[in-house]
Amino acid sequence: MEHINIIVIGGVAAGASFAARARRLDESARITILERGPDVSFANCGLPYHIGGEIPTRNALAVHTPESLKGLLNLDVLTQSEVTRIDRANKRVDVRDLRTGQTQSLTYDKLMLAPGASPIRPNLPGIDDARIHTLRNLQDMDRIVAASETGMRAVVIGAGFIGLEMTEQLQRKGLSVQLVELQQQVIPPLDAPMAALLESELRQHDVALHLGDGVARFAGNENHVLCHLNSGKVLEVDLVILSIGVKPDSELASNAGLQLGARGHIVVDEFQRTSDPHIYAAGDAVETSDRVLGGKTVVAMGGPANRQGRVAADHIFMGDKARPYPGSVGTGIVRAFAAVAGITGWSEKRLQAAAIPYQTVTVNDNHHASYYPGAKPITLKIIWSPEDGRLLGAQASGWEGIDKRIDVLSTAIVAGMSIDDLCHLELAYAPPFGSAKDVINLAGFAACNRRDGLVKHTSVLPDDPLVQVVDVRGKPLADAFPAPGKTINIPFPTLRARLDELDRSRPVVTLCAFGKMSYFAARVLTQNGFSVSSFSGGLKANIDPRTPAKLPNS
Amino acid sequence: MEHINIIVIGGVAAGASFAARARRLDESARITILERGPDVSFANCGLPYHIGGEIPTRNALAVHTPESLKGLLNLDVLTQSEVTRIDRANKRVDVRDLRTGQTQSLTYDKLMLAPGASPIRPNLPGIDDARIHTLRNLQDMDRIVAASETGMRAVVIGAGFIGLEMTEQLQRKGLSVQLVELQQQVIPPLDAPMAALLESELRQHDVALHLGDGVARFAGNENHVLCHLNSGKVLEVDLVILSIGVKPDSELASNAGLQLGARGHIVVDEFQRTSDPHIYAAGDAVETSDRVLGGKTVVAMGGPANRQGRVAADHIFMGDKARPYPGSVGTGIVRAFAAVAGITGWSEKRLQAAAIPYQTVTVNDNHHASYYPGAKPITLKIIWSPEDGRLLGAQASGWEGIDKRIDVLSTAIVAGMSIDDLCHLELAYAPPFGSAKDVINLAGFAACNRRDGLVKHTSVLPDDPLVQVVDVRGKPLADAFPAPGKTINIPFPTLRARLDELDRSRPVVTLCAFGKMSYFAARVLTQNGFSVSSFSGGLKANIDPRTPAKLPNS
Repeated sequence: MEHINIIVIGGVAAGASFAARARRLDESARITILERGPDVSFANCGLPYHIGGEIPTRNALAVHTPESLKGLLNLDVLTQSEVTRIDRANKRVDVRDLRTGQTQSLTYDKLMLAPGASPIRPNLPGIDDARIHTLRNLQDMDRIVAASETGMRAVVIGAGFIGLEMTEQLQRKGLSVQLVELQQQVIPPLDAPMAALLESELRQHDVALHLGDGVARFAGNENHVLCHLNSGKVLEVDLVILSIGVKPDSELASNAGLQLGARGHIVVDEFQRTSDPHIYAAGDAVETSDRVLGGKTVVAMGGPANRQGRVAADHIFMGDKARPYPGSVGTGIVRAFAAVAGITGWSEKRLQAAAIPYQTVTVNDNHHASYYPGAKPITLKIIWSPEDGRLLGAQASGWEGIDKRIDVLSTAIVAGMSIDDLCHLELAYAPPFGSAKDVINLAGFAACNRRDGLVKHTSVLPDDPLVQVVDVRGKPLADAFPAPGKTINIPFPTLRARLDELDRSRPVVTLCAFGKMSYFAARVLTQNGFSVSSFSGGLKANIDPRTPAKLPNS
Repeated sequence: MEHINIIVIGGVAAGASFAARARRLDESARITILERGPDVSFANCGLPYHIGGEIPTRNALAVHTPESLKGLLNLDVLTQSEVTRIDRANKRVDVRDLRTGQTQSLTYDKLMLAPGASPIRPNLPGIDDARIHTLRNLQDMDRIVAASETGMRAVVIGAGFIGLEMTEQLQRKGLSVQLVELQQQVIPPLDAPMAALLESELRQHDVALHLGDGVARFAGNENHVLCHLNSGKVLEVDLVILSIGVKPDSELASNAGLQLGARGHIVVDEFQRTSDPHIYAAGDAVETSDRVLGGKTVVAMGGPANRQGRVAADHIFMGDKARPYPGSVGTGIVRAFAAVAGITGWSEKRLQAAAIPYQTVTVNDNHHASYYPGAKPITLKIIWSPEDGRLLGAQASGWEGIDKRIDVLSTAIVAGMSIDDLCHLELAYAPPFGSAKDVINLAGFAACNRRDGLVKHTSVLPDDPLVQVVDVRGKPLADAFPAPGKTINIPFPTLRARLDELDRSRPVVTLCAFGKMSYFAARVLTQNGFSVSSFSGGLKANIDPRTPAKLPNS
């Protein structure tokens, strides 16, 4: 295969990574990138941050030009060049120059499809108003930059990762922002309680949240756009950002007769080959395998896209040394002002929906030693298989160190680690960086305690007046932030001496601020003959989430 | 075993964790902690930070008192109570009250030894001067606080973890500090190049480093202490901190006939049992198993101590459900002012000394997306087994996100992951948190490239005039920070057009700022018939380590 002729459709994450790797593996290959847009290899994940001014120079996002890619990688890049047809029989593509309208035909030995995914623009009344934007490329970004000014009113439709980033950045630019989301929470991939901190932080920054609501239609006039929501609410704004999801740009593949998945993504094998062995595909347009539980999944993220492109190039050039793409875990992270939440693997609600058995605990601790200044609380939820203790998913929310915990747990998931393994991860500890027992170790301990029957958990406070709800927090805290419903306050250090105040014949639920003292109390009561559950994760909603997680008598 | 009677010798990390877990597992046990010092369960890792004032309140470090432990855990704590003898035959210990001098005898069903380790105080002339301090407990800390004042001159002997923390904190308090270390580098567990950033940062903060030097004797008079070094240098100071290492407090165990390891540590099995099945031991005084390569190791760190204590309690109370301590990896992290370095697993020099085959690469990248403001460079070194690619160790240095990479790689090591696995870790990516291809992925890529024969590395620049050293950095950078020796500057983007300037019959070494462009250049040259090595890790010593790692034409 001397002077192999390679065509790449799409020159951003997957396509650019593929082409770069291909060049490093073969100096003599002819590699042509066809990009519909005017830019190639730009930093699409950075777009919201330039809109808000946090990335001040637009140029920082324009990673490469056709000229720089020629110099560095000897790639031929044709921008504003749209492929209109793949002729698989003759291994040709028809390319239209969007500037001239002229079409030429190019042949290939191997073709890489990296077309990405487009923002969904639903067919609603009034959708064509020029003030309704989506965000995919530098041109979309430029339009939003030009259309947004301090003091304007904006609405963001869709509170996924990009919706939250846009909300934060428009607010940062001085717009007043409302956020509409069909689910009853922001960041729908998270289980709802793990999104609560983001929601509180958004409200604290005067973002109006409309959860469980969607847009029914738009009505624009020369002064404003009216967003009519399903609930009947009408939002009057100057600017709309639509971020309700993306759909794969797989029409070209479909027209060429390549196999597509149930949701319209291009089907590929473990080396990113489509149903045509001369055509590869990678990035947001493909279906991939789920690395946690097998089966098919879709993960429209930059990391997987880049690595899939690389795998495809290896398969073309490295023969037996090429290694398959192992599938995606589904790792994501988002910041809303100072609050951060992350997820890896499967969520509880996704497991529930798939009727897959699971077990879960939620723990709270600080991101580094509590006694070292600046300790910030982290809430960490882990989910495992009751059959063998294998970790299936994890979510964290807090202020600092969320990315670290998610990365460790993503690594633990792909390693097939169990809750027992989490107990003994040996994580870096010095007071500015961690704790002797990191919150990940604590999650392992709590999970094993639950698995081993040392404690029963409840995630809801009972209504039943028969149940004795024992609040073991210190009296000042219990008085200042009372738990809902009827409770008996017995501060934990006095519990052993006050067992007689409780009725052994009636069930007990113990509760505290963070779920730790209530576990201690559950152990004391269980061993004294009570039937007890501990309220998992604690009442912390009543605690300022900015204060460290270890409080005296919490 | 009703009302089991447990005695714990030593009430800090391992002892306190053991006692707390034991109480949670058995409300009826009688648990007595015997602590030689006046304090129990204090935060010993925080001591340096109170000396420097970074932890302003001493109370933050006094985690518990005998009273709080009675209230929370129903523990009986006897402080200033030194055990003078273990009578194994009768399951008794003799305890001397250090206040009264009186001795009593206490029986046990199970005994936990958690005596810890003492700072080494070598028998040198002049060592008894009261201005020569070691740091183990709150009283040592109080003495150093009282003895140190702004404007004083201090010397720290020993540049390990505690030595570096003390250096930083004394300098922070306004003392002028010198640091003496027998090795030619700070933090001897690191491979020397990975300690360079810490050394540069210390010098930038006016810390005088005396590397490859040790103290021969001290001579004090009323005005100062003279430290006479092996090199003949004499340092005149007001205060000396000795931090040259610790030795296990295993005399009591030894006198009781318990088995000790080669370096005097208490030998335990996987459930922390000593050679006497009724006596457990945990923490800095014990030998443990090496989780990376098997065999015995010693890891005097807070994390392992806490978890070993817990394992011992589980073994006493949980029967079949108890799980063994899996061994220690050797994870450590240290900060010197703004610079951070961390290690997990085996170092290159330790593998070399043990004649164990290994392979290694060093890569540079930023701690998050380069285009997002605040990106800081990270240098990451990974070490693996050439036989199967299994990860044996990792080291990182930089400014931000070092703890995250070390934690992920520690997790990867205990999972038995290979360099192939590192390529496809799916780490959390949004511009403020990471990169689409994290530096850990890049290390995996670089390692696989090396393993697969795509590139040869050299870690030294050749002296041989026959070798063509090709500097592929941009001309301005190459001119401003020339590489040592004779080089040919061919900026990478021009390389393909300038191949004729090189002699195909002579070997080539390519070099650049960070090791990435030199790899690209090595690929171009290799495929054009040259015999090439890439200078691993780049010349970055000539680059300001505070600037992002991705530079145009670097």
